[in-house]
Amino acid sequence: MIDLRSDTCSQPTAEMRHVMASAAVGDDVYGDDPTVKELEREVADLLGKEDAVYMVTGTMTNQVAIRAHTESGDAVLFDQNAHVYILEGGAPAAISGVLPRLLPGTRGIFTPQDVLDALGSPHRFFPSTIPAPVKLLCLENTHNIGGGKIWPIEQLAAVCRLARSKGIALHLDGARLWHATASTQIPEQEYAKLFDTVSVCFSKGLGAPIGSALAGPRDFIERARRFKQQIGGGFRQAGIVAAGALHALRHNRERLTEDHEHARLLANGIAGLPGISLDVATVETNIVRFGITSIAAGEFVEKLYAKGLYVLPSGMDGVRAIPYLNISRQQILDAVSIIASVAREHASASNGSAYEVAASKGAGY
Amino acid sequence: MIDLRSDTCSQPTAEMRHVMASAAVGDDVYGDDPTVKELEREVADLLGKEDAVYMVTGTMTNQVAIRAHTESGDAVLFDQNAHVYILEGGAPAAISGVLPRLLPGTRGIFTPQDVLDALGSPHRFFPSTIPAPVKLLCLENTHNIGGGKIWPIEQLAAVCRLARSKGIALHLDGARLWHATASTQIPEQEYAKLFDTVSVCFSKGLGAPIGSALAGPRDFIERARRFKQQIGGGFRQAGIVAAGALHALRHNRERLTEDHEHARLLANGIAGLPGISLDVATVETNIVRFGITSIAAGEFVEKLYAKGLYVLPSGMDGVRAIPYLNISRQQILDAVSIIASVAREHASASNGSAYEVAASKGAGY
Amino acid sequence: MIDLRSDTCSQPTAEMRHVMASAAVGDDVYGDDPTVKELEREVADLLGKEDAVYMVTGTMTNQVAIRAHTESGDAVLFDQNAHVYILEGGAPAAISGVLPRLLPGTRGIFTPQDVLDALGSPHRFFPSTIPAPVKLLCLENTHNIGGGKIWPIEQLAAVCRLARSKGIALHLDGARLWHATASTQIPEQEYAKLFDTVSVCFSKGLGAPIGSALAGPRDFIERARRFKQQIGGGFRQAGIVAAGALHALRHNRERLTEDHEHARLLANGIAGLPGISLDVATVETNIVRFGITSIAAGEFVEKLYAKGLYVLPSGMDGVRAIPYLNISRQQILDAVSIIASVAREHASASNGSAYEVAASKGAGY
Amino acid sequence: MIDLRSDTCSQPTAEMRHVMASAAVGDDVYGDDPTVKELEREVADLLGKEDAVYMVTGTMTNQVAIRAHTESGDAVLFDQNAHVYILEGGAPAAISGVLPRLLPGTRGIFTPQDVLDALGSPHRFFPSTIPAPVKLLCLENTHNIGGGKIWPIEQLAAVCRLARSKGIALHLDGARLWHATASTQIPEQEYAKLFDTVSVCFSKGLGAPIGSALAGPRDFIERARRFKQQIGGGFRQAGIVAAGALHALRHNRERLTEDHEHARLLANGIAGLPGISLDVATVETNIVRFGITSIAAGEFVEKLYAKGLYVLPSGMDGVRAIPYLNISRQQILDAVSIIASVAREHASASNGSAYEVAASKGAGY
Repeated sequence: MIDLRSDTCSQPTAEMRHVMASAAVGDDVYGDDPTVKELEREVADLLGKEDAVYMVTGTMTNQVAIRAHTESGDAVLFDQNAHVYILEGGAPAAISGVLPRLLPGTRGIFTPQDVLDALGSPHRFFPSTIPAPVKLLCLENTHNIGGGKIWPIEQLAAVCRLARSKGIALHLDGARLWHATASTQIPEQEYAKLFDTVSVCFSKGLGAPIGSALAGPRDFIERARRFKQQIGGGFRQAGIVAAGALHALRHNRERLTEDHEHARLLANGIAGLPGISLDVATVETNIVRFGITSIAAGEFVEKLYAKGLYVLPSGMDGVRAIPYLNISRQQILDAVSIIASVAREHASASNGSAYEVAASKGAGY
Repeated sequence: MIDLRSDTCSQPTAEMRHVMASAAVGDDVYGDDPTVKELEREVADLLGKEDAVYMVTGTMTNQVAIRAHTESGDAVLFDQNAHVYILEGGAPAAISGVLPRLLPGTRGIFTPQDVLDALGSPHRFFPSTIPAPVKLLCLENTHNIGGGKIWPIEQLAAVCRLARSKGIALHLDGARLWHATASTQIPEQEYAKLFDTVSVCFSKGLGAPIGSALAGPRDFIERARRFKQQIGGGFRQAGIVAAGALHALRHNRERLTEDHEHARLLANGIAGLPGISLDVATVETNIVRFGITSIAAGEFVEKLYAKGLYVLPSGMDGVRAIPYLNISRQQILDAVSIIASVAREHASASNGSAYEVAASKGAGY
Repeated sequence: MIDLRSDTCSQPTAEMRHVMASAAVGDDVYGDDPTVKELEREVADLLGKEDAVYMVTGTMTNQVAIRAHTESGDAVLFDQNAHVYILEGGAPAAISGVLPRLLPGTRGIFTPQDVLDALGSPHRFFPSTIPAPVKLLCLENTHNIGGGKIWPIEQLAAVCRLARSKGIALHLDGARLWHATASTQIPEQEYAKLFDTVSVCFSKGLGAPIGSALAGPRDFIERARRFKQQIGGGFRQAGIVAAGALHALRHNRERLTEDHEHARLLANGIAGLPGISLDVATVETNIVRFGITSIAAGEFVEKLYAKGLYVLPSGMDGVRAIPYLNISRQQILDAVSIIASVAREHASASNGSAYEVAASKGAGY
Repeated sequence: MIDLRSDTCSQPTAEMRHVMASAAVGDDVYGDDPTVKELEREVADLLGKEDAVYMVTGTMTNQVAIRAHTESGDAVLFDQNAHVYILEGGAPAAISGVLPRLLPGTRGIFTPQDVLDALGSPHRFFPSTIPAPVKLLCLENTHNIGGGKIWPIEQLAAVCRLARSKGIALHLDGARLWHATASTQIPEQEYAKLFDTVSVCFSKGLGAPIGSALAGPRDFIERARRFKQQIGGGFRQAGIVAAGALHALRHNRERLTEDHEHARLLANGIAGLPGISLDVATVETNIVRFGITSIAAGEFVEKLYAKGLYVLPSGMDGVRAIPYLNISRQQILDAVSIIASVAREHASASNGSAYEVAASKGAGY
């Protein structure tokens, strides 16, 4: 089975397993795990932040960040297809009690004007007690539902500048920030410095089995540690898995370009197939999202699965495939063949409509 | 000062004050207020529901309804410009912990397909634990930010049918349901029967000083009474104000057509003025929303205010004006004159762009 | 029926009805209600605070105060029998997400040492992330479940001084603060100055039909207005009921001593009856709590009810009776007779155990 | 340094590290991790429940259980010194919005009558909307702050029977349930069958680096998986650490008696020392809690630390020491010597008061 469902499906390498098995550990709730501390220091330095805290998932780092930036009843700006909004179980409302206000991003990318529009126009005639006050903007780079889209750094800077001028805090969901850097060669901290806080993930493209980190100002991270513990995230000898994350951080960032090549290889191999709608220019990093114009996407992926290719439907008419470090060039070529074979079987049913990444409803599911 | 900010600005009439002053009252927390009970019975019957509960505001009835229909972490479908989403202080997230999922209504009106799209496409390959499950659809009729738009009843029925087929509960924010009925002559309960629960308001068009009611199945209302009390809404001798609400309910529903006429009179009087963008066909009930294409809306309303007309800006480029029972035909004519006078002063600055109700960002503010 | 269930059962007087009927009103959500403003100003001045906000219930003022003083996950100190903890529907947790930490008060009165004990002993070896941090102390004077007990002002000052020295904010639930003042002649603001915020109630002893107020620093009250609106408490022409509250505030504070006399008259009349356990010294204000040592309290009050006296059971073995402004001396004497008559019927069943106010479990129910 | 702070400080053994390094893993969010599945199956079988779910911490299993059993505004019964109430960061309120109602346990053990008392006496005269309804009872066995106290099974059964008869759900915090079984030889499932749900922990006495499990009915566990994901607990290749938990479960339960012997050895060694207050009969499992009657407990533990023994203060006047699998008999003997040495230095300061486990305030800190 060629498993392209997600880069979260990666398997730890033998070397990574070795470093985990021999990691120095302690009870991290008591602040005694040397490997966790080493990882946190290295992440903070890499991102140019004062401190960082290691947590068990990207959802936890994002939701703890939202919690620590806000209080119940605040509004938070998200892109309409943000992972934190769509794919984290309702946590912004359930955990932090914050109201999402949505930005009309295109493949996850929006403009300073979009932010301005979302803020409305306070006026002395209108009671300030009625709308929820906007306290935080969360932004995602690269953008998952947006097909791994990279934020142009100038536009990113402009959006952040505008938000900051309005007194709004800034959090970057950088689960795949590594991919942006691998592609643009702009260092992670150039992106990170635009934000108050940044979350990064080790268990996606980097290939570690478990964990994410949240970086930011020292007092913010202190506050985040409190909410991490409250939410049940205070794991004990976390160094076992932090060692894998540290290994991934040190060794697997540069090789992401290989995954990007594999993604393009896949995209180029299937674009133009009957019943496949795919603009290869939208494949900027390791995520390939394409449309199925013949049959329902759910049905299409079932047929691929029967032939040995495991991918996810994404909405009614979309499919998502993501190469990662355990996926070889040959497997990509095989995946192309399988997709081609299924596509041709259903070619006659094609409705010919073009697919726009992140524009179909329920795109992320 | 001609005050057209909102129909919530109405003053109780002498007769209404009289009935309030002589109302029989008791401690409603102990279920002893006869006037509250009479009002609740009358509202339940009017809406064709088993029971109803009187509360102090429309925000409270809506938010208690959301609370009683859901649990923390559920998703709720709202029109993107719904009052409960935009204008109730973040309460869906803060009070109920629910995640808003938005429908792309036009002036508040959406389609069964919009609901379907918002529900996404669950598939066995995708973890059901990741997205927040949709448990409730809230719908608003007439639609405030949509300019008092009335839902066509067939479309309303189709949307409700679709939602129900997906196991989704249905709540109607009927703060201005009276206006729909006054205009279409479709009885309130014809609208109400499509929903599990309905909130209605006495302090807007009906002119009572205080209060709303939530109607629905008996056990739901029992549950709602618990959350009303918890949220601090268990007022004592509420019969004082319930008497005003009851009076309003009995005497002020039919006269709403007069407010509708006043709204059209206002709309016809200002449509076509330089720097005013207004499609009179959008004025279906008592709310007039129009665009300002010359200067900022906030500045425009300040100038109106200086001349004796008190209205609200609505977003950057919109204005809202709402006639109600204390507003005479002459005051509407005077309002037209004031608007015309200000509009002409700024005509040369016009940018000529057309205004679409509820389409500009921050439209409700 | 002689109704001594609660002072919340009072009926507005004719004069109070008159002032409500003629009150000047406006839309309070827009800050336009002159009577509400007058009430808020008068309450703030009376309590020696910068500002005050009028709300619909005491539960709302208390819970908004807790909300505005804290954020989710904070701990709040309550007496174990505090009204805000026991009798407000779980709101501290549901609305504010705060964890109650309890103080072992006797009839609601605790000591600085109790507060110290509850704070525990932070130590560098123990992770500060594990316990919820204590941010607020709520205190109730007079204490409802404690039988209307008045806090000795020196002890009150000592408790507040200790809390303040630990950086803990202070809120006074002063629903019946008027009673403390009526009894001790210590002005309300002498009590109030010990606290950051104070809530007071107009619909209990003062006899207004609806409403409470929360007083405190200007920016705190501004913040409270936001949460009042969010929670659904932003009522419109609230001046109708605020007028009753203002009338009550101006005219009914001094006459509370009459209710206190009635309470003592009742207590003295029933102490010593067979099957009645009552220490008359515990009756300091208008609340009479006594034990039933013969049959279950619930059964006892049913028998009183059948004879025309309406009181509440309070736990398994307690009864609560509260005189108020509509209750005459003669009614108190009649109540004594009814209680005596029922007590004598069940005298033989007496178990002889003494009753301690607020010491039996579920005392407040 | 002899580290007796907590059994959470255990280090994975070489063999455990080996099985973790060679574990078969998959993405557990997609339900693909075979080791996690094996662990979950084995835990469910061991506890006699339909299903189980592996999570990252005991706090998470407990808090997800509370969340899944309740909704916001419900009341939950806890012992006054329960870990879930005192030592989980305010999570019951912050995550689930539930109000703790406290039981007056002695060393964590309470009676059916205590539960009855806490439930109060509902009566038709008293509004059912006012108190928060009790929906869940959480119970801890063995009891941490209670000094590792084991619940007598008959009393446990009686408490559960009473709660069940009142329609209250039952959750067992069994973080150290293994210790009860190791001591009493009553199988874990004999305890577990009294409860709807049970949480157990692998990273305390069992010595695994990370993780806990929650077991219960199939549909409950399905619901728990949703809240686990929402709270950020959906870790990916969790099999790495689940392998350690599985190893611990299979190999380290019976050896807990050795820790119990070490605890008794420690207790016997220090009881009777000057300035030490310790009733050795209170040491039933692996937790030793003793009083310091000479100097402040915080100061005492600092002095122990300076001599190479690392323990925690527990409140003002208590100390906690916990042996575990990496602690040898010799280390216990050395610990005794160190304690004796410090105790003797401060003997003259002794105030002679006796220490009661879990009775001093802030006992758990």
